[in-house]
Amino acid sequence: MKRQIINDPGAAVTEALEGMQLSYPDLVAYDTDRQLILRATPARDKVGLVSGGGSGHEPLHAGFVGRGMLDVAVPGAVFASPTALQVHEGTLAADSGRGVLQIVKNYTGDVLNFTIAGELAGDHAVDTEMVLVDDDLATDTGTGTDDGDGPGRRGTAAVVAVEKIAGARAELGGSLTEVADAARRVARNSRTMSLALQAGTHPGQDRPAFDLGADEVELGVGIHGERGIDRVRFASADELTELLVTPLVDDLGLSRGAAVLAIVNGLGGAYPLELSIAARRVHQLLGARGITVARTLVGTYVTSLDMHGFSVTLVPADPDLLKLWDAPVRTPALSW
Amino acid sequence: MKRQIINDPGAAVTEALEGMQLSYPDLVAYDTDRQLILRATPARDKVGLVSGGGSGHEPLHAGFVGRGMLDVAVPGAVFASPTALQVHEGTLAADSGRGVLQIVKNYTGDVLNFTIAGELAGDHAVDTEMVLVDDDLATDTGTGTDDGDGPGRRGTAAVVAVEKIAGARAELGGSLTEVADAARRVARNSRTMSLALQAGTHPGQDRPAFDLGADEVELGVGIHGERGIDRVRFASADELTELLVTPLVDDLGLSRGAAVLAIVNGLGGAYPLELSIAARRVHQLLGARGITVARTLVGTYVTSLDMHGFSVTLVPADPDLLKLWDAPVRTPALSW
Repeated sequence: MKRQIINDPGAAVTEALEGMQLSYPDLVAYDTDRQLILRATPARDKVGLVSGGGSGHEPLHAGFVGRGMLDVAVPGAVFASPTALQVHEGTLAADSGRGVLQIVKNYTGDVLNFTIAGELAGDHAVDTEMVLVDDDLATDTGTGTDDGDGPGRRGTAAVVAVEKIAGARAELGGSLTEVADAARRVARNSRTMSLALQAGTHPGQDRPAFDLGADEVELGVGIHGERGIDRVRFASADELTELLVTPLVDDLGLSRGAAVLAIVNGLGGAYPLELSIAARRVHQLLGARGITVARTLVGTYVTSLDMHGFSVTLVPADPDLLKLWDAPVRTPALSW
Repeated sequence: MKRQIINDPGAAVTEALEGMQLSYPDLVAYDTDRQLILRATPARDKVGLVSGGGSGHEPLHAGFVGRGMLDVAVPGAVFASPTALQVHEGTLAADSGRGVLQIVKNYTGDVLNFTIAGELAGDHAVDTEMVLVDDDLATDTGTGTDDGDGPGRRGTAAVVAVEKIAGARAELGGSLTEVADAARRVARNSRTMSLALQAGTHPGQDRPAFDLGADEVELGVGIHGERGIDRVRFASADELTELLVTPLVDDLGLSRGAAVLAIVNGLGGAYPLELSIAARRVHQLLGARGITVARTLVGTYVTSLDMHGFSVTLVPADPDLLKLWDAPVRTPALSW
């Protein structure tokens, strides 16, 4: 039986947000009426950044509110989109007169509600642009996002890179078009693959969302516990990591001389020793192909509750992107 | 059965260190001959800081090497002290001419090996001081560390505060005596309490180190899975957090008007939502007693492999301590 450190399951999200606000009052404010996480000190005269979506992926998105990243996070319930009205309020709150970029992971409900909110913002004379994050290679059917024939790829851990890069561009004074372009460049080129040794357990439940045999690993799992593309045999960290990295390299067409930003992301239940061992293999595999890993982020950033697993995200990197990546950031979950 | 993302269990520590070095080459270097983690760019003309101990507590200590914190980390095998020779090499490597502070968690093997290393360093004309971190209130028998009658309290998560404060003091140009004094002030006044819903699992094992019933929680558990002071009934996050906070407040004699630094630390298997919910309760409980939480750190910093549990550390805070806490830091695991 899986037990959790929670109180009322229905209040887990709001209590966690309260905890974050109480812990980092110099960084974030929690508006309980509008259900928004805002910067403690609102930015002035820059393009606003708003993101959000279902909760259960902590520290995403609330943990990325602060200087150099988001202005506003709009949290829904666990794995449920925030309402259009809530996103609307968040979009307006992110505006300081230069327009707002909405960063949206590609899920039907999120896209719908952010779209409505963007239209409503126009009624308030707030310009908006939306960037769709759809990095999950496991859901690439060859149709979808780009041509409108299907739901397209899901959005997962690449959203951290999109928020960081767009945040830096906005902080440097970019226009809404410039910030949106920078975000779209990252989103368009990012791909992620994930695997799980154990599914996450919903607050209030005592069993993981799905069962895996002692010899099974879910490859291509989604951050809501969506089933993956395959069940593979449990194997060493090196072999499992290779199952993630190889299709990413192939899909992105990375060849000798390429440079990437890599995110090795824990899905909630993976512990630091495991993530570092996986990161080692990511470097070995890419190094053997002559691909430079220009920057690496290793940690727990986009979770699926307490899912035991990890994802690898690769983003082709050029000097412009690295400069924005290296720019200062100060949020509860990412700082340098 | 508990499975892990590892390769050869015997190589897990060194592979994780390789992974950290490959991921953050601008921050840390891994000397595989001497088994040391060093700053990528050694500091000059400041008091050196060396810490270390058994592994399995990642990101401690290697993750805290960098500007504003440690100069050198000396990792042992999982839950096993590094050798005296290894600590000796680490102590010498930390020296840039102004002496070295050794930060040691209170475990017999670590204390012995750091003591020998300190004596050997003297033979090389390197001045050393040692600060002992012994914050684990669950192991307070009323005798021990101070009077030499017993092993004294164990060292756990307060070591993060000691390393941060001493690191900042050293960076500001403090003498060895000044840096050691700052470290000892933190160490002397810090107390930690921990609990676990599930023990950690050693790499290569398929079961946790000890079993807990579905209704049991280990209170006062150690970071090597040492048994605690009590098995209590599983309860809400609020109730469990109160079991940690109340004895800390009592032991430290905190009363209305006091100010503290709080660390809400995941032991490896706790996920971010849980830690934020626990942090909320820490603030509520202290707030109700009129105690100000001047700073909070919430995250996974001192683990016991994948143990599912958390600890709360309280450190009485004055403006001098907060200034050092707020000073810049740039390491793989802690940055601002």
